[in-house]
Amino acid sequence: MNIPSKHLENVVEQLASLPGIGKRTALRLALHLFNRSKDEIETFAHAFLEMKEYVKKCSSCGNISDTDICTICSNEKRDHTTICVVEDIRDILAIEATESYKGIYHVLGAIISPMDGIGPNDLNIDSLIKKVETGQVHEIIFALSATMEGDTTNFYLYKKLSPFSAQITSLSRGVSIGSELQYADEITLSRSIINRQPFKVQI
Amino acid sequence: MNIPSKHLENVVEQLASLPGIGKRTALRLALHLFNRSKDEIETFAHAFLEMKEYVKKCSSCGNISDTDICTICSNEKRDHTTICVVEDIRDILAIEATESYKGIYHVLGAIISPMDGIGPNDLNIDSLIKKVETGQVHEIIFALSATMEGDTTNFYLYKKLSPFSAQITSLSRGVSIGSELQYADEITLSRSIINRQPFKVQI
Repeated sequence: MNIPSKHLENVVEQLASLPGIGKRTALRLALHLFNRSKDEIETFAHAFLEMKEYVKKCSSCGNISDTDICTICSNEKRDHTTICVVEDIRDILAIEATESYKGIYHVLGAIISPMDGIGPNDLNIDSLIKKVETGQVHEIIFALSATMEGDTTNFYLYKKLSPFSAQITSLSRGVSIGSELQYADEITLSRSIINRQPFKVQI
Repeated sequence: MNIPSKHLENVVEQLASLPGIGKRTALRLALHLFNRSKDEIETFAHAFLEMKEYVKKCSSCGNISDTDICTICSNEKRDHTTICVVEDIRDILAIEATESYKGIYHVLGAIISPMDGIGPNDLNIDSLIKKVETGQVHEIIFALSATMEGDTTNFYLYKKLSPFSAQITSLSRGVSIGSELQYADEITLSRSIINRQPFKVQI
């Protein structure tokens, strides 16, 4: 594809660098954007710059936030003795949408996946252990995807966290095996939060 | 979806405003971008601003260009007596990739589609007629998609252009009926340029 403009080609390359977007789709999107007004393009471009400038990760749980501590961690009405461990920020959004959970979260940022070269050291685990060490956490809920990688991570976390007094639970397996957490429907996800069960090691 | 950051939500809204990108995909892309470095985000955002600043439409044919006259129209080695009429800039890219055509182009910008509220006045036709009126154009090739809308537009253009001396041809129907031009494979497209045929009105 020999695009007759360097600047347009730049945009196509940038869009095609996003996951799941190929060159043809990128060109379609670039031409769509080219036909927008200058104001609209400025709003579009500045949204990305402002995100990078102002959006942080909550220093307590790793959630996305505009402030140093996210709205969930700074909410005193929430139960700070219960921590729900998730892989990704999108999992928080999925669980929050069920309105079934009133505790706080901990975002691992990834799950153990040797195939992708992701080991325990790539996960945000230390700060979780520090929180649990204080003895103020009564329950830790494992809410990872029901996949091989999720189970591996559950097992690793269980080994690390079982010496402490907090009860360890995991989502009830209403979430169908093999599926990604964030794509579960709200009712299934809500049911699995309510029916969460003591974590048992399965070998 | 209750995104815990206004700035992230902005990015999601901007991405979801692109055709074919839903809210979930937009969030996935936004989080992917959030994890990139500041430099990378600046390169990303500035690509769009520079596109809007510097990319123009060729004042002669309507092709995308960094200069007032595009590289095809300003190329003296090309045959300026043959004009290939296309709907979209992407069609030029597809035809150029075949290396079977040495004339110049004319981009309509759209094709007649009453279902979408697009009539003849929404097409870039006047400048094409002006070029043909000079008498220096020997052949006009209709290279629109082999769809109902493409045929309607061919018919309309034929009515407008047949009073002049230029020969009117259309791509040979090697391009399978009902498919969009830009997705044709290069061999089929190349064959249909070589075997182009005199335009006949089909009622």
